[in-house]
Amino acid sequence: MYVYPTHIGMRDTDAAGVVFFARYYALVHEAYEAWLRSHGIDVGAILREGRYALPVVHSECDYRRPLWCGEEIRIETTVREARRRTYAINFRIVCADGRVAAEGHTVHAAVNMQTGKSMVLPEDVRKALAEMGDRAGPNP
Amino acid sequence: MYVYPTHIGMRDTDAAGVVFFARYYALVHEAYEAWLRSHGIDVGAILREGRYALPVVHSECDYRRPLWCGEEIRIETTVREARRRTYAINFRIVCADGRVAAEGHTVHAAVNMQTGKSMVLPEDVRKALAEMGDRAGPNP
Amino acid sequence: MYVYPTHIGMRDTDAAGVVFFARYYALVHEAYEAWLRSHGIDVGAILREGRYALPVVHSECDYRRPLWCGEEIRIETTVREARRRTYAINFRIVCADGRVAAEGHTVHAAVNMQTGKSMVLPEDVRKALAEMGDRAGPNP
Amino acid sequence: MYVYPTHIGMRDTDAAGVVFFARYYALVHEAYEAWLRSHGIDVGAILREGRYALPVVHSECDYRRPLWCGEEIRIETTVREARRRTYAINFRIVCADGRVAAEGHTVHAAVNMQTGKSMVLPEDVRKALAEMGDRAGPNP
Repeated sequence: MYVYPTHIGMRDTDAAGVVFFARYYALVHEAYEAWLRSHGIDVGAILREGRYALPVVHSECDYRRPLWCGEEIRIETTVREARRRTYAINFRIVCADGRVAAEGHTVHAAVNMQTGKSMVLPEDVRKALAEMGDRAGPNP
Repeated sequence: MYVYPTHIGMRDTDAAGVVFFARYYALVHEAYEAWLRSHGIDVGAILREGRYALPVVHSECDYRRPLWCGEEIRIETTVREARRRTYAINFRIVCADGRVAAEGHTVHAAVNMQTGKSMVLPEDVRKALAEMGDRAGPNP
Repeated sequence: MYVYPTHIGMRDTDAAGVVFFARYYALVHEAYEAWLRSHGIDVGAILREGRYALPVVHSECDYRRPLWCGEEIRIETTVREARRRTYAINFRIVCADGRVAAEGHTVHAAVNMQTGKSMVLPEDVRKALAEMGDRAGPNP
Repeated sequence: MYVYPTHIGMRDTDAAGVVFFARYYALVHEAYEAWLRSHGIDVGAILREGRYALPVVHSECDYRRPLWCGEEIRIETTVREARRRTYAINFRIVCADGRVAAEGHTVHAAVNMQTGKSMVLPEDVRKALAEMGDRAGPNP
């Protein structure tokens, strides 16, 4: 599990006074990028090299309680599943008092940018997923 | 079905050259707000009155193909389900050539802002959902 | 002058109940992209071809009154200045009652993406700016 | 001076591969909120109490070089000016190699939320600005 501590900024709130539902996904992606970075995967470099991409092919989230401006949170991410060509990441947003504000997951596919077709996960991504633990590693 | 035509702006794209996955939700919410407006429901006024809110309690999306900067799209929304205290909205993002770029749904609950508890859908929301057709109306 | 009518969506508001100051720029860029599109300039195609870019090198805005969720606005844009290598765009956000909510401008430079250096404005951009009127056209 | 270290996330980039110009303002506001928090000013609580607001009445930015996805940056903020009813904050975004990517400032006014009129800066805000140093403190 990777734990990313942060605070809720005004940019992510809306006129209801709490975080706009679409921004939960931006927040958890920020944690996911930090996690990849901590495993030596540089998302920016992957994009600039242009050999492959790891687009989100599915996302979903259950919203359990509102998140307020300035609130201290931590985002917990784990590998939900790692397959040959896809992987899924679980996320949970946890408030300072331990209550879960939201949980869900994203599914990612490896895509060869030359052909536009799905491809087997690049070795370094596969390795990072395996290291990330928590049900990580290719399915049997 | 409500059809909302628009174009993909730079603000919604990311360094992969296409729309960032979290922004699909912002786009479909824009269509949803236009739909409510067309049925006389003013989301801004509801928020300012502060009697009730209609927060998203679940969202999910399947991403079928990338959306490019400047691309012309239409967003199709239908009522997926209308219950006593919650309702769900289906969305589809359709490209100019008719291909579906993404589809999913959001689930909304009515919340009494005085008590913070769930409440029966306000009459005007219930009526708007019924008028919206496509499987709208309270379940039997 | 190009006039772009739109509504304020929840995505652009924040916990103060009104549009977050940074989003004014996203809104006026949406109008600017629509304006370029109306003159046959496809920003997405320019980015994908990768020959040149038109980055913003300066932006500024005066905020005169808040913008509320659901509010009907129009965004007025004019060419402020067109020089050999740069141009500037004026914007005004005008409320339904005619009051100006915000005004400001952005300055853009043409950059050769092969060399990373500034370049003379591409002919079609220069032509579009001239057509756009309102003080458009290269300075004497 | 307050220094806020962070990384550029995908959410802030656009199809040009670099940070979208409007997002520089969201990034520097994140640093500004962290700064206020470090001085005991809770922006979220101010908004929820609803006695006063500190809206941005002017913003401007010079963009000196692009910011790439994954890039490590630090945001430096200082008090530019503190007057009786308004204050201004300078920001600089600095890359890991010390080059300045952008600089600018925001001007804020204190507004009484009961009357909608400008007001003298609340005592705790005035005190925080004075502590923040770097040309802080009310003008003579």
